[in-house]
Amino acid sequence: MAGGELIVMKQPFNPDDGFVFHLSASKIKFLEVAEEMELIKEDRSGKMREFSVAQMEDFLPDDMHVDDLLTMAERQSIVMHELENVRALAEDDHIPGYPTCNLYEGQSIFQVCQEYGIVTKLFPLHDHEALKKLGQSCLLLYFGESIALYFQFLGFYTSALMVPVFLGLLQLLFITETIPFFCVFNVVWVTIVLEVWKRKSNELAFKWGTIGMTSMDEPRPNFRGTMGIDAITGKIQPQSPRYMTYVKMYVVSIPVVLVCMVVAFFVMLVSFWAEDYIKQSEDESLQQYIIFPSIIYSVVVFIMNLYYRKLANFLTEWENHRTQSQYERHRVTKLVLFEFVNSFLSLFYIAFIIRDMDMLKSQLQTMLIISQAINNFQETVLPLAIKYYAMKVLHLKQRFLEKPSSNHPKIFRENAVDHAEPLTELKMPQVQYDDERIKQATEEADMEAYEGTYDDYLELFIQFGYVFLFSPVYPVAALWAVLNNILEIRADAFKLCKVFQRPLSRKVKDIGAWQRAFEVLGALSILTNCGILYLTPQVRRRAVGLSEVEWLLLFVLLEHVLLGIRYLLHIAISDKPEWVRVALAKKNYESRQAIKFERSQKNRRLLTRKFKTVHLPHTH
Amino acid sequence: MAGGELIVMKQPFNPDDGFVFHLSASKIKFLEVAEEMELIKEDRSGKMREFSVAQMEDFLPDDMHVDDLLTMAERQSIVMHELENVRALAEDDHIPGYPTCNLYEGQSIFQVCQEYGIVTKLFPLHDHEALKKLGQSCLLLYFGESIALYFQFLGFYTSALMVPVFLGLLQLLFITETIPFFCVFNVVWVTIVLEVWKRKSNELAFKWGTIGMTSMDEPRPNFRGTMGIDAITGKIQPQSPRYMTYVKMYVVSIPVVLVCMVVAFFVMLVSFWAEDYIKQSEDESLQQYIIFPSIIYSVVVFIMNLYYRKLANFLTEWENHRTQSQYERHRVTKLVLFEFVNSFLSLFYIAFIIRDMDMLKSQLQTMLIISQAINNFQETVLPLAIKYYAMKVLHLKQRFLEKPSSNHPKIFRENAVDHAEPLTELKMPQVQYDDERIKQATEEADMEAYEGTYDDYLELFIQFGYVFLFSPVYPVAALWAVLNNILEIRADAFKLCKVFQRPLSRKVKDIGAWQRAFEVLGALSILTNCGILYLTPQVRRRAVGLSEVEWLLLFVLLEHVLLGIRYLLHIAISDKPEWVRVALAKKNYESRQAIKFERSQKNRRLLTRKFKTVHLPHTH
Repeated sequence: MAGGELIVMKQPFNPDDGFVFHLSASKIKFLEVAEEMELIKEDRSGKMREFSVAQMEDFLPDDMHVDDLLTMAERQSIVMHELENVRALAEDDHIPGYPTCNLYEGQSIFQVCQEYGIVTKLFPLHDHEALKKLGQSCLLLYFGESIALYFQFLGFYTSALMVPVFLGLLQLLFITETIPFFCVFNVVWVTIVLEVWKRKSNELAFKWGTIGMTSMDEPRPNFRGTMGIDAITGKIQPQSPRYMTYVKMYVVSIPVVLVCMVVAFFVMLVSFWAEDYIKQSEDESLQQYIIFPSIIYSVVVFIMNLYYRKLANFLTEWENHRTQSQYERHRVTKLVLFEFVNSFLSLFYIAFIIRDMDMLKSQLQTMLIISQAINNFQETVLPLAIKYYAMKVLHLKQRFLEKPSSNHPKIFRENAVDHAEPLTELKMPQVQYDDERIKQATEEADMEAYEGTYDDYLELFIQFGYVFLFSPVYPVAALWAVLNNILEIRADAFKLCKVFQRPLSRKVKDIGAWQRAFEVLGALSILTNCGILYLTPQVRRRAVGLSEVEWLLLFVLLEHVLLGIRYLLHIAISDKPEWVRVALAKKNYESRQAIKFERSQKNRRLLTRKFKTVHLPHTH
Repeated sequence: MAGGELIVMKQPFNPDDGFVFHLSASKIKFLEVAEEMELIKEDRSGKMREFSVAQMEDFLPDDMHVDDLLTMAERQSIVMHELENVRALAEDDHIPGYPTCNLYEGQSIFQVCQEYGIVTKLFPLHDHEALKKLGQSCLLLYFGESIALYFQFLGFYTSALMVPVFLGLLQLLFITETIPFFCVFNVVWVTIVLEVWKRKSNELAFKWGTIGMTSMDEPRPNFRGTMGIDAITGKIQPQSPRYMTYVKMYVVSIPVVLVCMVVAFFVMLVSFWAEDYIKQSEDESLQQYIIFPSIIYSVVVFIMNLYYRKLANFLTEWENHRTQSQYERHRVTKLVLFEFVNSFLSLFYIAFIIRDMDMLKSQLQTMLIISQAINNFQETVLPLAIKYYAMKVLHLKQRFLEKPSSNHPKIFRENAVDHAEPLTELKMPQVQYDDERIKQATEEADMEAYEGTYDDYLELFIQFGYVFLFSPVYPVAALWAVLNNILEIRADAFKLCKVFQRPLSRKVKDIGAWQRAFEVLGALSILTNCGILYLTPQVRRRAVGLSEVEWLLLFVLLEHVLLGIRYLLHIAISDKPEWVRVALAKKNYESRQAIKFERSQKNRRLLTRKFKTVHLPHTH
């Protein structure tokens, strides 16, 4: 096995919990790996380029010490990179000491350890000093691109919501005739917001040096394939043909996801039918159970969600996507499709099948407010409460058993029986018993692990749907959303700093599948808004002269005009700001010049050699 | 003025016609400019990279002589590049000898000469040797990328049409119930075809080395701006901010184009009203003039088109787009919008306002067949006939006047009065009187100039609309289209080789605005097909159980499902084939490595110098 050359220190051994290792790297190693990872940093002249140790001075402003060159997020992803890239060689067929844990060539050993539960927890420690002075601008440095981008999106989206809030409040004041105008404005606004976000996201990706990420980049640790020469870089990396992934997606994953969606849809229908049955039943005693179907439905959805999430993770892993971004995109797509059915289809059913606008409004109101309340509770109050009580229980237990504290973090735990060299005997520097870091690691190991930005985006996605899909029915939704989001920004920051283990930083160039998910919802909102306007009796009453078919055609026309405007806006608003395009073109031009320079250098060397061997004898 | 360093020979002077110059370049100049233009060529290993004289051997297969290295199209664009890049310096305020022809710094002098009519004609000579052995694969070498891509598109589109032909013939055999299925298949097919074409087009662009063209490339000769340092290449080039172009487009061009479209629409309405008026009039004698409105309408459209084309050219030139591709794209967009109104709006009117499917069918039939007949006539028969008669008239005139032939080509003509050094006295090598090239130049000068691929694409665009927009009404249209296109491939090739002057080669990376134009038409065809099915009485008769509103909703639903499928296909079919993406990523990776190499070389030199100056004294 190739070693990661990391600095590993173990914590004093505690037989109850297994081993805890503290990982770091030397200053030089950090810089070397930064170069190897082709980390993009801003140089003195403000240009984004790949970091290189030889040219380190170019990246160091005068007032910066070399130790501060790499941000916390960068250092952390360097350690992760090294840890994950300890790969099995051809002769390693299992993890030493764990004969049941099979390895194949090129697999990331650390990932296998995580899969088999040899490693149970992995997290970076919080930096309380840094947290104290953490402003909006430092999010990137502390948490990395993925989380910084989420906060950027949350802020951008919330400020964009101010326009619907204003319109929604106006709508309350004015008469109902103005509703269609507000709706039209709303759906156009959504399109503009999402197009502008794409620009902003590209701008950020450029500034962060992630805009060049492609599906050809270095594979994710879990990417399976035979080791081979990479067609692009010429490095030895696991290779697996892309078409296999497509075959798996089209033949298995998509049908499975569709079946799950249909099942979820039927579960919803059954709950509606049950409610209907109770409502229409003659039996008076049955009426008191009218609330039961929706409660049962909520529970079923919760359980379905749990299992579906596992299924989606499994399928996406099995599809074997090359990069982390691809993996995330396909995983999120699967999850969002299912969530869409659960969150919105009942509203669609009420709006367009039952066609009861009052019921729609009350349902929307309930769902919006309840979901926001539950989310905020889940995110902040619940984990803190659990932690508090867990501590109390533990305390009691300890006092009762009169034994020393046993809630140590388990970063590595041995749970296999036979191994040649027990970890206890590993020769390795130990962290001192009284080291501050032991206490911190112990505390933070008990915190929950942050599972990635999925849940946070999902919350916004559902909120977005509630606000825009049915805006004529419940225009105040935007106001609730803004109030929630202002709280959310703080709650999320609190959650990341205090409630969860410090998340691993992850590079991203955009919000991935969410961009498309929001866009599709934006397009759908055109359809639903037109549909609801068509069905609203107050609007219909104003146009008594029109036949039913003409009335319908009017809204079909309106919808197509709006879809047309959407297309035009999509064309007119370019994805990247002009300055980013110029900067990218410049970089491209410079690297083309460099390749010419390299070739000419080689040629000169060749010519020089020729000259020496052929012509020199003549001149002498 | 900076000279182009071209080889210029003049033809023996003939006072009636002015001067004829033959332009060429030395072998070395050709290669030098090829490097300067950053021409992309395939090297021995099959990779596309920028040509360089120093590494010429890399681009020369063993069996190829250095004279054959550059294709005819390449050599021709090199001459054009040199000619167009003779730019005015700060001290040149007018063309020497023509005080009224103003110049400003950085302007292309040759373009100004063309504008003021100092140069009246410019064309490359045909190469009859090459023409004889010209196969499909040599089109690129002879005519350049723009025309080769047109032929590729024509071939691709025609073979894609075979599916609708087959379906259309089936539809004739089967009963009318199957029409909806054929329609649905047709519109899905259109989407697939256009997405696959985008892939193919990118593949070709990669092979031709044009895929990297951007709006940041070298400006077109007519691009106006103050000379300044280019942000990307650092070269001195005319600079003009992009936002000025946008302001001009949004404030002037788009409103003007919209007004023109509305006017064209009203002209169409007036013709319909006139026809209606005659039809419904009591006066029997008026009935014989029933054909007049459509004849007058055709004439008016013809005239409007002429003027509109001038307007579009003027506006696009005025908008001042940086590259030729941008210029073409915006010019084509303007023209297509207007042509759309003229070609299709009358059919929309008949289909959805008059709702007379029989009238639609006969109108469609007439327009399709007439337009194809006229086009083929215009393209081949007419120019030949004109040429034949022009020759005859000239012959008669010559015999009558007993003077020598005077139909010499005028490449340069002097039409200003005062100039210091009359062109007659220019010291310059002359082409021999009996040179074969004089005869050829004389002949070809009388040929018409090929105005670019616009008319050819337009023809396909209109045909595409006739075939797909109203396919349920006239399914045989596809058959007519295929027959026409098979003829068209030959007619176009004939036209380019025999009827027109040899066109200047032009680099393109895609079919520009036409891709979007065809895509929009494809999307519209979903709307129109659903609309026509909804209105077709035969289809309606089968569903007597449905109310009018339900019937309409059914087709609205169908349309939305089809639009959804279109979106999914758009996502699922990636723009570039996998191998092109890998090759581009590889190129990108290599150039990034090269920039690192360049930097490390520079660093080493710096270090070496430091070492010499600081440490050497110590060692000695």
